[in-house]
Amino acid sequence: MGSSEAPRTTTGWAAKDPSGVLSPYTYTLRKTGAEDVVFKVLFCGVCHTDLHQAKNYLGITRYPAVPGHEVVGEVVEVGSDVTKFSVGDKVGVGFIVGCCRNCSPCRSGEEQYCNKKIKAYGDVYTDGQLTQGGFADSMIVDQKFAVKIPEGMVLEQAAPLFCAGITVYSPLVHFGRNRSGLRGGILGLGGVGHMGVKIAKAMGHHVTVISSSDKKKVEAMEHLGANEYLVSSDATRMQEAADSLDYILDTVPAFHHLEPYLSLLRVDGKLILIGVSNAPLQFDSPMLLVGRKTITGSFIGSMKEAEEMLEFCKEKELSSMIEVIKMDYINTAFQRLENNDVKYRFVVDVAGSNLHHQ
Amino acid sequence: MGSSEAPRTTTGWAAKDPSGVLSPYTYTLRKTGAEDVVFKVLFCGVCHTDLHQAKNYLGITRYPAVPGHEVVGEVVEVGSDVTKFSVGDKVGVGFIVGCCRNCSPCRSGEEQYCNKKIKAYGDVYTDGQLTQGGFADSMIVDQKFAVKIPEGMVLEQAAPLFCAGITVYSPLVHFGRNRSGLRGGILGLGGVGHMGVKIAKAMGHHVTVISSSDKKKVEAMEHLGANEYLVSSDATRMQEAADSLDYILDTVPAFHHLEPYLSLLRVDGKLILIGVSNAPLQFDSPMLLVGRKTITGSFIGSMKEAEEMLEFCKEKELSSMIEVIKMDYINTAFQRLENNDVKYRFVVDVAGSNLHHQ
Repeated sequence: MGSSEAPRTTTGWAAKDPSGVLSPYTYTLRKTGAEDVVFKVLFCGVCHTDLHQAKNYLGITRYPAVPGHEVVGEVVEVGSDVTKFSVGDKVGVGFIVGCCRNCSPCRSGEEQYCNKKIKAYGDVYTDGQLTQGGFADSMIVDQKFAVKIPEGMVLEQAAPLFCAGITVYSPLVHFGRNRSGLRGGILGLGGVGHMGVKIAKAMGHHVTVISSSDKKKVEAMEHLGANEYLVSSDATRMQEAADSLDYILDTVPAFHHLEPYLSLLRVDGKLILIGVSNAPLQFDSPMLLVGRKTITGSFIGSMKEAEEMLEFCKEKELSSMIEVIKMDYINTAFQRLENNDVKYRFVVDVAGSNLHHQ
Repeated sequence: MGSSEAPRTTTGWAAKDPSGVLSPYTYTLRKTGAEDVVFKVLFCGVCHTDLHQAKNYLGITRYPAVPGHEVVGEVVEVGSDVTKFSVGDKVGVGFIVGCCRNCSPCRSGEEQYCNKKIKAYGDVYTDGQLTQGGFADSMIVDQKFAVKIPEGMVLEQAAPLFCAGITVYSPLVHFGRNRSGLRGGILGLGGVGHMGVKIAKAMGHHVTVISSSDKKKVEAMEHLGANEYLVSSDATRMQEAADSLDYILDTVPAFHHLEPYLSLLRVDGKLILIGVSNAPLQFDSPMLLVGRKTITGSFIGSMKEAEEMLEFCKEKELSSMIEVIKMDYINTAFQRLENNDVKYRFVVDVAGSNLHHQ
């Protein structure tokens, strides 16, 4: 199919100032370029980063900002050079919608580490327009940044895979922590953490959830299938668990002391940060030296890894645990997210919502 | 040869209290066990850790403490089951003289990460006696912890290889940073740092020395063969060098901010701590996430790696740059070491010193 003649408008829900309150906002999508895919949004997950961006916690938000980067939709138009997709395909889009294609990470297929990557919303696209995310009727993306959703996946459950899922899958694969038989820790049991438990279990790991309180213990053990549950303030059990883990996925998006968790790692163990903290983190260097332990970080994943992850999740029949909401509930959902009151991911039924009225 | 009948005495120079002042001290060596090697000490390097231990900076020193863990000697007696060595062999001993032989690191030949490792001095041996190091006429070690020095190596130049050398060689190999063509940084140009430049150059790397001032620039470039020299306070040049290094060996044994150095690393770059800081270190977590950068540490190296390193150094005709001193100069040498006033390692000519008089 060729490019459409006139730009189309779409309606989403945008934050308009640092209050972070979302409300309807109508804007123009770019013309369908040769490599572009236009899709109607069906579902969109709600990530902590959406909340941070809406409220400008990182100081980089451009308003109006339509959040949403765990997007699932149905293709309604494709550009003339699009080969990966046809109208009617179900596709997913995550955090990134552009990259330079020339730098070392881009050339090695790890565009998520491109310094010129373009984020799904709150960023400036190559045409100079602000990008806007998946809390909207439609989106348009370069085909490189969309992934076909395998037949048979439940679409609303697939949505969280495009950020939470890939964020845990990518480092486990990249750092060689995807062999069966490993012992892993998941620090923090929010939207990302719950995917961490599920994916690590599906990889055949012995999974320990580490949390500041025991209030999620039953859920973690019975609903998510964790093998153990450690309360970080329980010094006796933390001591018993010393030197036992091959890795910890640290999902905590705020300041926390790293020493207790480093002590849980065995020799060559890795503490992998996947939650962004605004405040600097601290550690005692001898803990790294005497066990050759590692603190590292990982940021979402590549498009190639996203495809692999979807196949992995399909094969393992792995789904997310979500609470489906309509768009008019989003401001309440943000409030609950801030209070860590969700099991474990809100997903907006975008197609089933009236986007024009608050 | 069998075991000798009577325990032998030896004289070394020991710190007797936290003043850290060394003076002659005569003590008994254990009887030669079946797996033991007795050797006459010829040379011994002087490491920053010797100073820390003598002055009890880490709070774990047992007095009297004879320092010295870069030891080169000549075998004078071997136990009945010793197969690796004969009388007359030149051998080297480093930081470790015992381990449990049963734990996971021991079983995988990485005894330096054994939780029950026994240090060359200031530790308690299996017989309950304090271990004493290489600032002494003789030492006795289990054959597992001695390495034969290849023919043709200059013995006094070999001494620093047993701590400074292995400390830089091991992480470069372990972390896959020994391919030619990499770009490496050496942070801090002391005894360990100078070996870092030499070994990294011998591995075929483009080596940048990073220092707080430019006073070592000429030496680094002309004598050690570094390719570049960065002064960390030069914001313009630090900015130009951003995202350029595959690794940094961080030899600084004190608190320092890590952000400027993390910014020099490219995607997947590693900041490898090999200097122990008493104070916690800090970093901004987004710097790790958005470039999948790593902070890790490494502690000396295994006996197997020590053998490989000696062969590597022999093949590359790599030697250390040292200042040879007699034992009666050691207290002055400690003072100069504390002031960072040595190019680049003091080595005590132990066999050529009168150990009995101050």
